[in-house]
Amino acid sequence: MKILGLDSSGLVAGVAIVEDGVLLAEYTTDYKKTHSQTLLPMLDELRTMIELDMSTVDAIAVASGPGSFTGLRIGSATAKGLGLALKKPLVEVPTLEGLAWNLWGTDRVVCPLMDARRNQVYTAAYEFVSAGENFELKVLIPQSPSDIEAMLEKLNGLDRPVIFLGDGVPVYLELIRQKIKVEYSIAPAGNNRQRAGSVAALGAVYFAAGKTVDAAEHRPEYLRKSQAEREEEMKAF
Amino acid sequence: MKILGLDSSGLVAGVAIVEDGVLLAEYTTDYKKTHSQTLLPMLDELRTMIELDMSTVDAIAVASGPGSFTGLRIGSATAKGLGLALKKPLVEVPTLEGLAWNLWGTDRVVCPLMDARRNQVYTAAYEFVSAGENFELKVLIPQSPSDIEAMLEKLNGLDRPVIFLGDGVPVYLELIRQKIKVEYSIAPAGNNRQRAGSVAALGAVYFAAGKTVDAAEHRPEYLRKSQAEREEEMKAF
Repeated sequence: MKILGLDSSGLVAGVAIVEDGVLLAEYTTDYKKTHSQTLLPMLDELRTMIELDMSTVDAIAVASGPGSFTGLRIGSATAKGLGLALKKPLVEVPTLEGLAWNLWGTDRVVCPLMDARRNQVYTAAYEFVSAGENFELKVLIPQSPSDIEAMLEKLNGLDRPVIFLGDGVPVYLELIRQKIKVEYSIAPAGNNRQRAGSVAALGAVYFAAGKTVDAAEHRPEYLRKSQAEREEEMKAF
Repeated sequence: MKILGLDSSGLVAGVAIVEDGVLLAEYTTDYKKTHSQTLLPMLDELRTMIELDMSTVDAIAVASGPGSFTGLRIGSATAKGLGLALKKPLVEVPTLEGLAWNLWGTDRVVCPLMDARRNQVYTAAYEFVSAGENFELKVLIPQSPSDIEAMLEKLNGLDRPVIFLGDGVPVYLELIRQKIKVEYSIAPAGNNRQRAGSVAALGAVYFAAGKTVDAAEHRPEYLRKSQAEREEEMKAF
């Protein structure tokens, strides 16, 4: 089983290919270029380097939101285009689940924080539950746009050690330090931002469980209205 | 602080750049090409994609062994060449510590297994110990070439849940299932093979602690004699 993973939900652009429990290739950049400049060239680079016949890919896993509106649209459009051209299904991996998957194997609560601007984060809380030789990702607090302080209160309520990761961490680090009452850690470089390798690996789990969608049906999950939509609504008043 | 990470200790070829707690770029392949065909072109690709001025790199972290003799020599030669040309120090990251770092944040024992052929694995056991907002990697069983059954007995003696990872896992999976008596898990794709991102991230920790070597002084840690050396010794008898 061969799964292509794409993540352009935030500042990171990532492409990865997982086959039967092994990462064949992964390419990640976290740089100021726009994803429309990077994502497809990165895929093409990987494809050439590992001599990948794209028709052997079983499904395309994509970080399906939340995230940057433009980033999600570039990721989804790329995934849909590939899915339609190759006649392969898509696997929608919620962005925050993909992020949490970076910390596979921890016994602590995993809390991804993505900076959502306007004093909000996209956040959720997960735990890994041992299941045979593997772990399953279980939702403790579902993903939502949230005020950071409200989220910290919920985490305090869980009364368990927690690990934070994501691009919201540096933005709200001082507030976290002030308000968190449980033992906490901050994930380090290499595990603290989106990885297409995690999207592909978790996508492989979902694919095996039959959780796919047709390329034509896929829509990213924005969780909030875009700035353009908000401005349009304001005009109506 | 900007750290370049290189890992070509096994089948994986990996290049990564970490700056101040963020992975700027990572490129990983696990493919049949030799590392002499992949490692430098991958570095050049990354460098171009993120417009990296190599003179801004503070140190070069390299997976310093154990591993494939040829792979280690290619990684070390590349790191030494870059270090000498750029006048930057090297950071030696033991291959098994880099592998273990993939599972940063777990409370379980981490046991990397690298297939060392001749019925042996390169192995060790680690745990992550909470240290402020971070974790430190602590050695429970030092790295060595070992018989897999002897290692499984040591792990049973620790009497703690353990996570296995590395290219030795598929080779010895049936034996692990037969002999292990503690709760165990197998790391999934994306976390179960060498990552230059982990070498760079752990390298940054070591660099900050002053653990560097001059490029001219660096030698990989093979842990065993090469096949050529063994054959030479056999001839002497």
